[in-house]
Amino acid sequence: MRAVVMYAPGDVRVEQREDPKILAPTDAIIRLSATCVCGSDLWPYRGLDEHDGPVPMGHEYVGVVEEVGGEVTSVEPGQFVVGSFFASDNTCEICRAGYQSRCVHAVPMAAIGTQAQRARVPLADGTLVATPAMPEADLIPDLLAASDVLGTGWFAAVAAEAGPGKTVAVVGDGAVGLLGVLAAKQLGAERIVAFSRHADRQELAVEFGATDIVTERGDEGVARIKELTGGLGAHSVIEAVGTQESMMQAIRSARPGGHVGYVGVAHDVELPGRELFYSIVHLHGGPAPVRRFLPGLIELIWDRTINPGKVFDLELPLEEAAEGYRAMDERGAVKVLLRP
Amino acid sequence: MRAVVMYAPGDVRVEQREDPKILAPTDAIIRLSATCVCGSDLWPYRGLDEHDGPVPMGHEYVGVVEEVGGEVTSVEPGQFVVGSFFASDNTCEICRAGYQSRCVHAVPMAAIGTQAQRARVPLADGTLVATPAMPEADLIPDLLAASDVLGTGWFAAVAAEAGPGKTVAVVGDGAVGLLGVLAAKQLGAERIVAFSRHADRQELAVEFGATDIVTERGDEGVARIKELTGGLGAHSVIEAVGTQESMMQAIRSARPGGHVGYVGVAHDVELPGRELFYSIVHLHGGPAPVRRFLPGLIELIWDRTINPGKVFDLELPLEEAAEGYRAMDERGAVKVLLRP
Repeated sequence: MRAVVMYAPGDVRVEQREDPKILAPTDAIIRLSATCVCGSDLWPYRGLDEHDGPVPMGHEYVGVVEEVGGEVTSVEPGQFVVGSFFASDNTCEICRAGYQSRCVHAVPMAAIGTQAQRARVPLADGTLVATPAMPEADLIPDLLAASDVLGTGWFAAVAAEAGPGKTVAVVGDGAVGLLGVLAAKQLGAERIVAFSRHADRQELAVEFGATDIVTERGDEGVARIKELTGGLGAHSVIEAVGTQESMMQAIRSARPGGHVGYVGVAHDVELPGRELFYSIVHLHGGPAPVRRFLPGLIELIWDRTINPGKVFDLELPLEEAAEGYRAMDERGAVKVLLRP
Repeated sequence: MRAVVMYAPGDVRVEQREDPKILAPTDAIIRLSATCVCGSDLWPYRGLDEHDGPVPMGHEYVGVVEEVGGEVTSVEPGQFVVGSFFASDNTCEICRAGYQSRCVHAVPMAAIGTQAQRARVPLADGTLVATPAMPEADLIPDLLAASDVLGTGWFAAVAAEAGPGKTVAVVGDGAVGLLGVLAAKQLGAERIVAFSRHADRQELAVEFGATDIVTERGDEGVARIKELTGGLGAHSVIEAVGTQESMMQAIRSARPGGHVGYVGVAHDVELPGRELFYSIVHLHGGPAPVRRFLPGLIELIWDRTINPGKVFDLELPLEEAAEGYRAMDERGAVKVLLRP
């Protein structure tokens, strides 16, 4: 099969790899209908993560089940499925508490690579959720978004306790931040302030439910949030970048007792204990337990209540994956969908 | 009146100061029945906080109202009252959300000094809670504890979401940690693990509700918590120290998705973003909004359901305050009560 491999920062290739095989009786093999490039793939692409190339890439996926191991009971060949970027058993105590991304048997799909024609999905019963039927073609980008970027934005909004009567600020106008806006809207937030200085992203933020756009960043951005909230700060803040500046902007944008939901993978972040202490905010985040939200998100997509696939503004054949990475790196695209 | 003043690290004196006066119509003047030395007073005493002496000391207090300003309506002269270490209006949006320690008009009582015979309490209507009647003498230490150390331990337990079915770990065996144990017990926690290596504190922890004592610290202590919880970590962790080691011990003792409630005033703490991210814990803490809990705590004390005053293991006349500081500094006493 054809698959994306990163050899070194900036060096992404599509090459021939062996087709995946069932290795454990709990595995499933899926044929991918679509996959995509994640903002987190850009960290190694930019040389900001350690990288021992060549490594298979990708952890977002939707597709059709081709084969299942002998112990798999909840999905069967022929079904269209969505899974999250961590395979999870969905039965352990951590999973049952809703933290499937830290399942005691978690397997990161990034270690398997889903920017490919086929992929092995471990713990298929716990990981995969089948759609009610084969989806219409135009729903596939929406369902793919649920696999990570929507689920992650949704987790951030839940972690930030977005809801009725709340003012929600969103730091980061990438796909996750934009879908954090969508999630906050769906969760009933009263006012949603998106930090963004890019016209196309501002437009999508407003379409997803943003009521205000703030173009300032850092402490100036914080000052604007304070102005918009009677000097208090937002009730809820979504952080979807992962830098020191974005984390501090998020914490400082929240009011005392407010909630910060952070999902940007932290890079060189050190939170000053004294400032955090006196901020008296709630801080919750990490790798999103997307599996918790998948059934509900699939339903919202199936009913055409939400259209998260709009974050894909560039679609390429898998063979042109390198071009997709380049576009996202240069911010020419918000998020790139790849067709295997 | 007589009052405690810190001139420099290690240099605590009791001297003559002017009696306080009503400065604003929302003030009250109280005559203190008891006051005490706080663990946080030890930071400047040990030269670990910046100190521009001489400064009045103390922020915990119970006593009898002597005089009120013209706008005070909820308390009157002759009543016995308990207040928190932040004066708060209890009417602003932040107070109504339960974060009175960050009231938009908050006044730190530490800036006024309550290790004294009398004290001015700003925002008396929002700050002071009267007891149902003049308390019996043996209840005074319990009520004094509510002013800070009990309210702080209680907030930590609430922030850590201690409750039925939960395993709660408590980092720190000072008065706040011990009262965190008491709070976790009252909130219905199933199992309470106290980190402590001092026999007298272990004994009090068990009396307050600890089911297990762990004497190891740091990563060894974390390993013990994992052993006690099937490898997962505690659901809830209370942090009541404020050092880098104690914060990391708390975060690492919590299971994925668990809750860390931290109330130790952070000193030279930098939280590593990446580790915090992957821990996927909830982190909440800061200066405790004791006022939120005061009415309920006073009721539990009045009914003799709880006896938090047990943390006072040394009682001295106010004139001997310096001896009280020394005893706490040398860990000869858990907490020192001063009689003005």
